[in-house]
Amino acid sequence: KINGDRLWDSLMEMAKIGPGVAGGNNRQTVTDEDGEGRHLFKQWCDEAGLTTGVDTMGNMFARREGTDPEALPVYVGSHLDTQPTGGKYDGVLGVLGGLEIIRTLNDTGIKTRRPIVVTNWTNEEGTRFAPAMLSSGVFAGIHEQSWAYDRTDAKGLRFGEELERIGWKGDEEVGARKMHAFFELHIEQGPILEAEGKDIGVVTHGQGLSWTQVTVTGKESHTGSTPMPMRKNAGLGMARILDRVDAIAWSHKPDAVGAAGHIEVFPNSRNVIPGKAVFTVDFRSPDLAVIEDMERRLREEATEICEQMGLTVEFEKVGGFDPVEFDANCVKAVRDAAERLGYSHRDLISGAGHDACWINRVAPTAMVMCPCVDGLSHNEAEEISQDWATAGADVLFHAVVETAEI
Amino acid sequence: KINGDRLWDSLMEMAKIGPGVAGGNNRQTVTDEDGEGRHLFKQWCDEAGLTTGVDTMGNMFARREGTDPEALPVYVGSHLDTQPTGGKYDGVLGVLGGLEIIRTLNDTGIKTRRPIVVTNWTNEEGTRFAPAMLSSGVFAGIHEQSWAYDRTDAKGLRFGEELERIGWKGDEEVGARKMHAFFELHIEQGPILEAEGKDIGVVTHGQGLSWTQVTVTGKESHTGSTPMPMRKNAGLGMARILDRVDAIAWSHKPDAVGAAGHIEVFPNSRNVIPGKAVFTVDFRSPDLAVIEDMERRLREEATEICEQMGLTVEFEKVGGFDPVEFDANCVKAVRDAAERLGYSHRDLISGAGHDACWINRVAPTAMVMCPCVDGLSHNEAEEISQDWATAGADVLFHAVVETAEI
Ligand SMILES: NC(=O)NCCC(=O)O
Ligand SMILES: NC(=O)NCCC(=O)O
Repeated sequence: KINGDRLWDSLMEMAKIGPGVAGGNNRQTVTDEDGEGRHLFKQWCDEAGLTTGVDTMGNMFARREGTDPEALPVYVGSHLDTQPTGGKYDGVLGVLGGLEIIRTLNDTGIKTRRPIVVTNWTNEEGTRFAPAMLSSGVFAGIHEQSWAYDRTDAKGLRFGEELERIGWKGDEEVGARKMHAFFELHIEQGPILEAEGKDIGVVTHGQGLSWTQVTVTGKESHTGSTPMPMRKNAGLGMARILDRVDAIAWSHKPDAVGAAGHIEVFPNSRNVIPGKAVFTVDFRSPDLAVIEDMERRLREEATEICEQMGLTVEFEKVGGFDPVEFDANCVKAVRDAAERLGYSHRDLISGAGHDACWINRVAPTAMVMCPCVDGLSHNEAEEISQDWATAGADVLFHAVVETAEI
Repeated sequence: KINGDRLWDSLMEMAKIGPGVAGGNNRQTVTDEDGEGRHLFKQWCDEAGLTTGVDTMGNMFARREGTDPEALPVYVGSHLDTQPTGGKYDGVLGVLGGLEIIRTLNDTGIKTRRPIVVTNWTNEEGTRFAPAMLSSGVFAGIHEQSWAYDRTDAKGLRFGEELERIGWKGDEEVGARKMHAFFELHIEQGPILEAEGKDIGVVTHGQGLSWTQVTVTGKESHTGSTPMPMRKNAGLGMARILDRVDAIAWSHKPDAVGAAGHIEVFPNSRNVIPGKAVFTVDFRSPDLAVIEDMERRLREEATEICEQMGLTVEFEKVGGFDPVEFDANCVKAVRDAAERLGYSHRDLISGAGHDACWINRVAPTAMVMCPCVDGLSHNEAEEISQDWATAGADVLFHAVVETAEI
């Protein structure tokens, strides 16, 4: 069994870096705070006797040797970056849970045949630079690294330059490492486990996602002196589209969700009718056909709304991945571990995207989930109990060590 | 007659300060660019032999002496600040039109009995610091100066500190000056004069305005893993309210307009359901009862929408003025001037708010309007012809000089 107190202490220690305004964290990707978090993690890895490497996307790898020099390693990890108003556990639990496995192995002197490598993937959240899971995506060959470097944030800063600026652009070729398997522990970010009183979610699938950035163009003009029939109000067009986004997602209930978290109007002045509105629609479903249907209807219905209002509309797909089915053997290793340890568990479909979703393309992969209070995540009030974290890390430990073979 | 070429050259010279991105201007109030524009205007006033003063709200006054030392002056002017993506004429024409009166009087050696004072009012636009017409409002005793100083922009900077920072907080007590009359020349910012082929609008009334800042509060949560029935999407609540704003304004057609130019969601992250949305609703009408009805319905309907969605909503009135009736004698002076000069004209209700609307409370006031292309304003593409500007300034000249008495 892992040391739940030590894991919890590390979680609280990391949470001191990039504190939020309401008890959570603002440690967005490739900011100074992200750099500071990385240094703390590296220090802990050094103290645990691990060999660390960083690739050209900033992905961090910390390796504990195995007894068989030929054997491919088992990887375990998640991400240390957070939302701008994020929680202390989303991602962090998976990285520090991986580190806790190493510390427990060191304590007990257990040697595994395969090396174990703890990983921190860069820019999982996708808030500052879309898309989410950017660097595990490059690792898995989904995106070109040069394309990833060119992603810009709201201020126009480029991902590649920011990564260099904070000093975490490594020299390892991204994706060169080969994995025997990958495991990721994460909080559920949804309400099911807590509602059913289960300790562990055995993640069999992940929902697919589609991010469409919609740009509605009208005509900037005076809110007072422009007669109603002459207005081309891009903000009003956006409002009507947002209502349809909701209706489209509900029409596929319970197999789909939809919303826009990113919304901007220009010039954003109280007495100027918005001439432009830009927002990103997030649709998800475990069923690819449902996602495709929602994307199609968004384009159709938004086009119809805009035509009626004398507006123009453009669509750009800025993120997406297909629904994922995790590796049967890895999933079984997680389920068996939960069973063996006596934790209550159930199979789950992940509602959120995870680095594991991309790594699943290049290595056998599975995920362990633990409950979170009220299913709340992407909120500073995100909360879990130490018992939940301990159970999750225990199951992760057993699944990883079994796969790495003693 | 005034010198239309000289007026036009000055307009083009001023437009070089704080250029926009699309041919217009971004010379927002109490920015460095605003400071630079003020310096140019003061230099021109000095060259014209005027005595300049600045009050504690940054309002600028440039005085040409009259022959009667006891007589109250006639004031004339408008504002030099612009929208973030504003035009070259909105406000500027009224200030430089006033200066052109002085230059023409100097050229011809005409002496008026009353002094004439050209004025630049600070923060007419209200974009950076709500409300609009802030400093003419303090001058007219509508707002307390200390309250005005505390207005903050989107970055949290205070108006009073920014005014001091750019070096234009003067020492004159605001509102201490007494006026015989005030005249303001402005572009129409609406389509009527151009559509009817009229040179001059004789402004008899101004619409009233109400700005309500609406804050919708929901719950930040994950766009992927939060089930649809558990969402408290403040952005969606806002969208539904925006649609009602439009419907409410149309229900009073043709006597009302309504829209939201300012829209923000928090934390504004693609994969976070907005926990908060803040936007400002702008309602206007020449009829006070209509404005009051629209305000009431906004509050009622928004509250109903939010209750149904599990959201909360708060309202704050951040700007407003009642419909205005300008002074009959001043209006007549404008109409007579247009008639005498042979310009086609019609009476108009101003769709926009103007400094003249506040000054009308403390001195007999009227406005002259000239057409603008397509009625377009609050847009960098705002355009007028030199002939229109010349006609407007000619009428302003005659109305002012007649009122100042030769
Ligand atoms: N786990 C998580 O919040 N990932 C961010 C990517 C997503 O939006 O699903
Ligand atoms: N004239 C003008 O655009 N004034 C700004 C105040 C308003 O929104 O009416």
